[in-house]
Amino acid sequence: MSATVSPLAPKTFASLPALRGVRMATASAGIKYKNRTDVLMMVFDAPAAVAGVFTKSKCPSAPVDFCRANLPHGTARAVVVNSGNANAFTGMKGRAATELTAKSAAAAIGCGENEIFLASTGVIGEPLDATKFAGVLDKMHADATGDFWFEAAKAIMTTDTYPKVATRTAEIGGVKVTINGIAKGAGMIAPDMATMLSFVVTDAAIDSSVLQSLLSAGVEPSFNSMTVDSDTSTSDTLMLFATGAAAADGQARITSADDPQLDAFRSALNDLLKDLAIQVARDGEGATKMLEITVTGAESDAAAKTIALSIANSPLVKTAAAGEDANWGRIVMAVGKAGEMADRDRLAIWFGDVRVAVNGERDPSYSEDAASAVMKKQDIPVKVDIGLGSGKATVWTCDLTKEYVAINGDYRS
Amino acid sequence: MSATVSPLAPKTFASLPALRGVRMATASAGIKYKNRTDVLMMVFDAPAAVAGVFTKSKCPSAPVDFCRANLPHGTARAVVVNSGNANAFTGMKGRAATELTAKSAAAAIGCGENEIFLASTGVIGEPLDATKFAGVLDKMHADATGDFWFEAAKAIMTTDTYPKVATRTAEIGGVKVTINGIAKGAGMIAPDMATMLSFVVTDAAIDSSVLQSLLSAGVEPSFNSMTVDSDTSTSDTLMLFATGAAAADGQARITSADDPQLDAFRSALNDLLKDLAIQVARDGEGATKMLEITVTGAESDAAAKTIALSIANSPLVKTAAAGEDANWGRIVMAVGKAGEMADRDRLAIWFGDVRVAVNGERDPSYSEDAASAVMKKQDIPVKVDIGLGSGKATVWTCDLTKEYVAINGDYRS
Repeated sequence: MSATVSPLAPKTFASLPALRGVRMATASAGIKYKNRTDVLMMVFDAPAAVAGVFTKSKCPSAPVDFCRANLPHGTARAVVVNSGNANAFTGMKGRAATELTAKSAAAAIGCGENEIFLASTGVIGEPLDATKFAGVLDKMHADATGDFWFEAAKAIMTTDTYPKVATRTAEIGGVKVTINGIAKGAGMIAPDMATMLSFVVTDAAIDSSVLQSLLSAGVEPSFNSMTVDSDTSTSDTLMLFATGAAAADGQARITSADDPQLDAFRSALNDLLKDLAIQVARDGEGATKMLEITVTGAESDAAAKTIALSIANSPLVKTAAAGEDANWGRIVMAVGKAGEMADRDRLAIWFGDVRVAVNGERDPSYSEDAASAVMKKQDIPVKVDIGLGSGKATVWTCDLTKEYVAINGDYRS
Repeated sequence: MSATVSPLAPKTFASLPALRGVRMATASAGIKYKNRTDVLMMVFDAPAAVAGVFTKSKCPSAPVDFCRANLPHGTARAVVVNSGNANAFTGMKGRAATELTAKSAAAAIGCGENEIFLASTGVIGEPLDATKFAGVLDKMHADATGDFWFEAAKAIMTTDTYPKVATRTAEIGGVKVTINGIAKGAGMIAPDMATMLSFVVTDAAIDSSVLQSLLSAGVEPSFNSMTVDSDTSTSDTLMLFATGAAAADGQARITSADDPQLDAFRSALNDLLKDLAIQVARDGEGATKMLEITVTGAESDAAAKTIALSIANSPLVKTAAAGEDANWGRIVMAVGKAGEMADRDRLAIWFGDVRVAVNGERDPSYSEDAASAVMKKQDIPVKVDIGLGSGKATVWTCDLTKEYVAINGDYRS
């Protein structure tokens, strides 16, 4: 946790209500530091439906492998998350650590090990001593409480400067359901996946296969449209759980992703995922500016996203933002290097509402003062129209500052 | 030009001999600043054979378009290079500027406009006032001198902290020929192309088509294996000229790229290109460390290069280098995100001669002190063995420092 809070942090945090069917507890297991909360346990009173999307890294962490293996089982009784050690690139020892942790958690709860899900964040390559969990999981299971979301969000922070929380409600068949989500991540953040860890829980009664369909679609315009530094973690994990407690209010279980009763829920979920993703981008290491980059007029939506990410990941665009420099030439550069079809003479670029370039050259009515005024703001909308088709995409990123370099130049030592 | 010279600058500069058939001059045309050398003219006394490779940007500069159009003509009489303005994203005005510049140069020399080659470096998007060239090109042509390579290299610098020069000799059919090269570039440097501007001249007698073949092959393991910040310029230009003056010593003109007499020349040229490319990487904006990243054991050479560039472009790897942190977990991350086949359990990683990871986990004999000692050096060799095949590649990059952010946060203003 950093000493200074990101200037882009939310002014107020959402208040997350207790959610029927899930309880949480934290503990200090001494994984890396003494006397610091480093374990979160999320317990489902009854088997919850579960869905997950994970890093596309070819060198995923042991917990990611473990979760992927358990996902087809379709139900969850607990999630154990630790900070301080990512249990990544830890070979046989890493697998042994996940097995031991799951065994301890399953024993504490009285469930199968295939109903346990794990996530770890922290240093890569250090063996994780899972025996440290054994002593704390029993008590966590006993102490877990429902009104604990904010504490849970804080417990999974590493270089985050603020906890990320979001909540939404929706109706399914006239029954009100709630969705709560937490996330962590501030560096090594890029599609795909775009966050290190995020856990979302609803009390709705929805089948696992439907949840997976919702999550796989919902991650694209949210976490997978956000980048801090283009570096994809080995541990990225986004999971969605449905406790089904709303069935007690008469909510009929949703068994098909095409069910029209799911529309409001889908919309609320997507909104929550986007909210969490933007909160992560706003906590990008060293960030002082938030860039919302919208590309229109590309050959396809996919091309638009490639171009938008090329802009969002450009060190020169990001440093210009840090310097409050309306340097649209670097936007042109980033469009050009993206590899997608672009015609210089059709390109138009806006900072906020200020059109700075059009038809292959500087806007005739370009005003440096007007563009600079936009750059001085904390939130900078950048719009690029390629002028070729109807493909569009929006991505979010932050600026690249000396503080990012400082944070990452001495993180491990 | 920066006030402080890169700590990675060469201790001494190669002394480039005058090269028969080419002369150079510089001038102050007042393109952006007053009283500053901002134009270089390279004049070939007789039509020189010419080859070029250019940026793959979809938004190339007007001079790049101009050079590409002239290249099939196959001979060059002059190169005009300016700093201060890239003449990129300048639409119709940009084309008019290249035409006017070429017309002025052709008139000064008495040759066709299709024998003129142009390059511009500097700010993107500002119209270039080519009328400023008209007044200086005549005099430059008259004043041009052969013993001018170091001055020429200095004249094309922008944020470079030192001029890049290299020279080699080789024999073709028993006749000694010389190759001189200059380059500029310190930011917005990435494959492909990896430098903004580089001009190489030989007095050998070689056909244009052969030159092009040599250059297209030679650029891959040199400039296209070097990255400062992953940002590909709109203006990247590497050109190779052959004046043919060595024919006077009896060198028979080379007309086939397969001619075995070309072997020594090819080797000398490739060595010179690599020398220049590394000089550019060593002058990366804000650089304090040079990383040579070698990937072996990949599925193919192309896969090895993709992985090596993923490592070289990772902000987290580059900031760790700046912090002298032997953070091999970030190497694992960068291997994982590259998208090429990798098996965590076969991966091995070295910093210098210190093996830090093997078989999917930290090396049992890992010594933090030994790894840290490597990181404290200016030149840091990083080796990654993927353990899957025989593909290999080497790329060069520099670290990412606060100074990079500072330089690029207020470059334009």
